[in-house]
Amino acid sequence: MGTVTFPVVGMVGGGQLARMTHEAGIPLGIKFKLLSDTAQDSAAQVAGEVVVGDYRDLGTLRRFAQGCDVITFDHEHVPTEHLRALEADGIPVRPGPDALLHAQDKGVMRARLSELGVPAPRNRLVSDPDDVAAFAREGATGGADGFPVVLKTVRGGYDGKGVWVVRGADDPNASEPFKAGVGVLAEEKVDFARELAANVVRSPHGQAVAYPVVESIQVDGVCDTVIAPAPGLDPDTSVRAQELALRIAHELGVVGHLAVELFETADGEVLVNELAMRPHNSGHWTQDGAVTSQFANHVRAVLDLPLGDPRCRAPWTVMANVLGGDYPDMYPAYLHCMARDPQLKIHMYGKDVKPGRKVGHVNVYGDALADVRERAAHAAGYLRGTITE
Amino acid sequence: MGTVTFPVVGMVGGGQLARMTHEAGIPLGIKFKLLSDTAQDSAAQVAGEVVVGDYRDLGTLRRFAQGCDVITFDHEHVPTEHLRALEADGIPVRPGPDALLHAQDKGVMRARLSELGVPAPRNRLVSDPDDVAAFAREGATGGADGFPVVLKTVRGGYDGKGVWVVRGADDPNASEPFKAGVGVLAEEKVDFARELAANVVRSPHGQAVAYPVVESIQVDGVCDTVIAPAPGLDPDTSVRAQELALRIAHELGVVGHLAVELFETADGEVLVNELAMRPHNSGHWTQDGAVTSQFANHVRAVLDLPLGDPRCRAPWTVMANVLGGDYPDMYPAYLHCMARDPQLKIHMYGKDVKPGRKVGHVNVYGDALADVRERAAHAAGYLRGTITE
Repeated sequence: MGTVTFPVVGMVGGGQLARMTHEAGIPLGIKFKLLSDTAQDSAAQVAGEVVVGDYRDLGTLRRFAQGCDVITFDHEHVPTEHLRALEADGIPVRPGPDALLHAQDKGVMRARLSELGVPAPRNRLVSDPDDVAAFAREGATGGADGFPVVLKTVRGGYDGKGVWVVRGADDPNASEPFKAGVGVLAEEKVDFARELAANVVRSPHGQAVAYPVVESIQVDGVCDTVIAPAPGLDPDTSVRAQELALRIAHELGVVGHLAVELFETADGEVLVNELAMRPHNSGHWTQDGAVTSQFANHVRAVLDLPLGDPRCRAPWTVMANVLGGDYPDMYPAYLHCMARDPQLKIHMYGKDVKPGRKVGHVNVYGDALADVRERAAHAAGYLRGTITE
Repeated sequence: MGTVTFPVVGMVGGGQLARMTHEAGIPLGIKFKLLSDTAQDSAAQVAGEVVVGDYRDLGTLRRFAQGCDVITFDHEHVPTEHLRALEADGIPVRPGPDALLHAQDKGVMRARLSELGVPAPRNRLVSDPDDVAAFAREGATGGADGFPVVLKTVRGGYDGKGVWVVRGADDPNASEPFKAGVGVLAEEKVDFARELAANVVRSPHGQAVAYPVVESIQVDGVCDTVIAPAPGLDPDTSVRAQELALRIAHELGVVGHLAVELFETADGEVLVNELAMRPHNSGHWTQDGAVTSQFANHVRAVLDLPLGDPRCRAPWTVMANVLGGDYPDMYPAYLHCMARDPQLKIHMYGKDVKPGRKVGHVNVYGDALADVRERAAHAAGYLRGTITE
């Protein structure tokens, strides 16, 4: 027997993104090694090689990285200096620390996108509530006072957490974000028509693929539904959004999946809202709706393998998130959901149900958008317990 | 928190069928527990909960079954009496021992299918080489002598092993099968036009789904290519084959996936060749070519969940097996294969390469059969090393 070179992909973080990345890696015959906070984490339940440990500890990371051919991530929380240390040890880290910083720190991201001339909401770092009022005044036009203003802590936010809307100078939200002791970014509150996501995958070689641009519908700051492709999207806007995402991936040196969350304004302009450098909720539809899923392409990218076809397999695919409701056990709901819709694709994460927590999603594809949306919404609602027939 | 009822599926056997069943079970949020001969087996590399032990030992099986909600199988080798013992312990075994016996013992299978009036090659158990000659004479018509005759050991054969073709009374193959010390079945050698497979999945409730009938092309007794659906198959023959498989599943009380391997004769008759009660090589195309894969439906069936839609997602899907060749390392071949065909679906099993061993398969789907076949054959040949451009 000669040498066998099937690589070991090490993934930091045991959440559902790692769970689904492992699932997508199984057909490739690669080895998957997980660094997880606990043995009960979503991905740790189903992966073969699991190291339980704290990703904030460099020694733990270094021991985990031994024997890995590449390190990638379920989340963006690994300290930059630790990633640089792993790189200095000779371990490829993908995406690398210089790219990942833009997904870790919204201030750095905004500054860099401004340099690149990428369309974005007006924004700058602010130092205190008075500075928030000054930021509002800078944006005041005509009779308007520049409010509302959106404040975000530059680190640590997700799913609407770490985000405040300030409706006037006296709004207590103007002081709230400064209590966390991290930088605060102010942004104009864009009066957008809808939210889109342009998702791309890029390899170290520089090969890149762009998924169809999708519409993302948020409820209470949490992604509720994703429609692929975005209905009625102007083809020029679609191409512009894809080119924007490809350009950001290139300029920032992203390796792996990059989600570019966008606001579409009433006049068809697209503004960058957020970046994520990992598989992303707005790409879950690809598991059943695209030729190659975001998870499979993320694995291929971090291994510098040629990327797979990102195109749609069906005219419409709708993803609906399953949030925790009042019922701790969703399994009995499978009977109704599967019997009602034999084409339904359920993706559960093995997580304990907590109200509002993302514990799974469903994908439905088909020819008629209204039908596909209804089926996805019904299944997600039934699993959550908000629909009972 | 109330009780959470997501079940534990225990699978006996660590081969690629278990590997791909685990992969298909991840989205359902179920727990998967594996009994594997070694920690290096195909499925053991990727599954979360692995017990290493010998399935021939009842004590091992009993300990494994503790905490499992149902036991199912990667292979048909677990002794019937052990399965009955597990059932007596209150563990659901699916398929159950009475059904599984027909996939374990070709003599039992042939006798039962005869009772049911299922079309089959002429056959009977034979006791020695003289009896083989007698069996041939019983089938002699006109000037023919009744040879060739096919001999099979009733247990233990697979992929052409345990099968002999006897071309005349003096052929040494007439005595060879009797050396194994197990029963020997004689069958007429059917002059078939091609081989088909009718695959169905049945739940304990009695719900069943039938996959499109496929053509299976064997090379040297090993499955080489599967085409879904079988090209040019007469619609009446297709329905007849599906009904036959559904009837066998019902009459034998099969739970889970049942593969019915068929001979199609020149005049459109279908004769049952073999049965397998587990996911089967002739169903691997469903991973990428059907709405619901055989693996997902097998899991749903053994859990008595409603079954998923078995229909095709593309006009044509072709599966080509990847056999071991002279190169022990197939990973470098990914570069060419993935770059040449961004829609190619590779499924590798994590197995050491040995010449002729099934170590993976590829699936390709599309609108034009010739194109799809060429792409699948090219990828499988390139991975094996028989095609080098």
